[in-house]
Amino acid sequence: MKLVRHGDVGDEKPGLIDAEGGLRDLSGILRDISGAALATTSLERLRAIDPETLPLLPAETRLGPCVGGTRNFIAIGLNYTDHAAEIGADIPAEPIVFNKAPSCISGPNDRVILPKGSAKTDWEVELAIVIGARASYVHANEALSYVAGLCLCNDVSEREFQMERGGTWTKGKGCPTFGPLGPWLVTLDEIPDPSALDLWLDVNGERMQSGSTSTMIFGVAQIVAYLSHFMMLEPGDVITTGTPPGVGMARNPPRFLKNGDVVTLGITGLGEQRQEIVAFDDWTAKVAAGEPTH
Amino acid sequence: MKLVRHGDVGDEKPGLIDAEGGLRDLSGILRDISGAALATTSLERLRAIDPETLPLLPAETRLGPCVGGTRNFIAIGLNYTDHAAEIGADIPAEPIVFNKAPSCISGPNDRVILPKGSAKTDWEVELAIVIGARASYVHANEALSYVAGLCLCNDVSEREFQMERGGTWTKGKGCPTFGPLGPWLVTLDEIPDPSALDLWLDVNGERMQSGSTSTMIFGVAQIVAYLSHFMMLEPGDVITTGTPPGVGMARNPPRFLKNGDVVTLGITGLGEQRQEIVAFDDWTAKVAAGEPTH
Repeated sequence: MKLVRHGDVGDEKPGLIDAEGGLRDLSGILRDISGAALATTSLERLRAIDPETLPLLPAETRLGPCVGGTRNFIAIGLNYTDHAAEIGADIPAEPIVFNKAPSCISGPNDRVILPKGSAKTDWEVELAIVIGARASYVHANEALSYVAGLCLCNDVSEREFQMERGGTWTKGKGCPTFGPLGPWLVTLDEIPDPSALDLWLDVNGERMQSGSTSTMIFGVAQIVAYLSHFMMLEPGDVITTGTPPGVGMARNPPRFLKNGDVVTLGITGLGEQRQEIVAFDDWTAKVAAGEPTH
Repeated sequence: MKLVRHGDVGDEKPGLIDAEGGLRDLSGILRDISGAALATTSLERLRAIDPETLPLLPAETRLGPCVGGTRNFIAIGLNYTDHAAEIGADIPAEPIVFNKAPSCISGPNDRVILPKGSAKTDWEVELAIVIGARASYVHANEALSYVAGLCLCNDVSEREFQMERGGTWTKGKGCPTFGPLGPWLVTLDEIPDPSALDLWLDVNGERMQSGSTSTMIFGVAQIVAYLSHFMMLEPGDVITTGTPPGVGMARNPPRFLKNGDVVTLGITGLGEQRQEIVAFDDWTAKVAAGEPTH
């Protein structure tokens, strides 16, 4: 099942994608793709609905982030052997954990705004986990039962804020629009093997990242189990699991995003995203001229 | 005005403290102390209510965390000159920023549970800021208008998880019950000078921490303005601002919390907290025997 959220920024309604790729409205059935709606029993109830009975929405409807109500947006660093190698980092013995501000979450095709003063905004295509049930001290062999599904994430990162401003990585990871999620929240039954997915990311049509979740150091079940020993995970929490090689800062010379760039990215079975990059001042000018904020 | 949340864990209702220290119920007036209820206009409406007209609740009513719906629980590290000195750290040039999982938030007098396998759980009395309105790129001289109020926080920390498990501090800061907030959310009009407050913390009646917000490196307005350049702050977000000297890891020999310890702490004008420390296995045994989870 492919769940989506559609409509205006901050007022998204639930929906799903039918067998022909059509967008169907679920707002007559549930309030949002969030909280208790992510529980196994709730997902089973949605799966029992014939999509043909749901209202079909126009194909051009805006998609919002595919999960709502996220409180904890966690990220795993240096989780691909080939990415660790490209930036000259050691393979971590345990997952490296940091946070993205939940207010950075945006729709899969919304603009990405370069923060004021940013010269080093970078891309990271990632596989993200959406938690479906409270998880505390769970074992890896039961961890997947706490997962509602998977989605595509661009873990947008400002490298100067992240690494040259003192302290932990938090400052460079949570700027507004730095967390496009979706298009779809794909339930696990559609992803038989999360460790065999291809990931790719292009900037202006030029391939920058290309990798496979087969080179992930810590897998989906292992990450959920590990984190649950340090914090209680809650429905709607999102864990983005690290990026394969090809980020801008690792290129020679480094390459960062600039006003007008277009980033496209995708993961097998999880759909694609497309983001126009816009400098902060250009964005405020566009909004002042009446364009939508996203 | 001193706002509170009272009742069962996860089902707290709004309230306030009257001039005689009595607990008054606000649940007939608003749904929760969260989100839009934290806006200036909402606080003004509450201030206009005569507390004598509100139902008086029993003094033994449990208090929950003084703010609900927190998505981003941010913490500032090494923000007191005398604490930086005690652990031999340099004075940071910019605020050090990390996150606590929002699921760690607990009531001011709830038990603090030692995580499984913890040998180094430590205390940190702190002044916390509660955000009242969306803040993005705000200046220090207007930053206080985005603050709903202040509260007391124990930034409970597991030092091995924080510093010996690789990566950033996240792992040792967000375990369940590691974020007691309250008793009160005190609006700014009652705290004329947030930079002249005394802080103290005792373990089993023995004074461990004693300090003043006058030795804070970055003050309340400065922190809000600084953070707003890296992330959008939202109503209900909490920023805990660092601890004065006297943490357990800085003692010689180091001292950490153990099963049965009692921690008490307070800040001028913001009230006091009292936490019984309980080992994870003891806690599960107590809950199995019918004691409340908190």
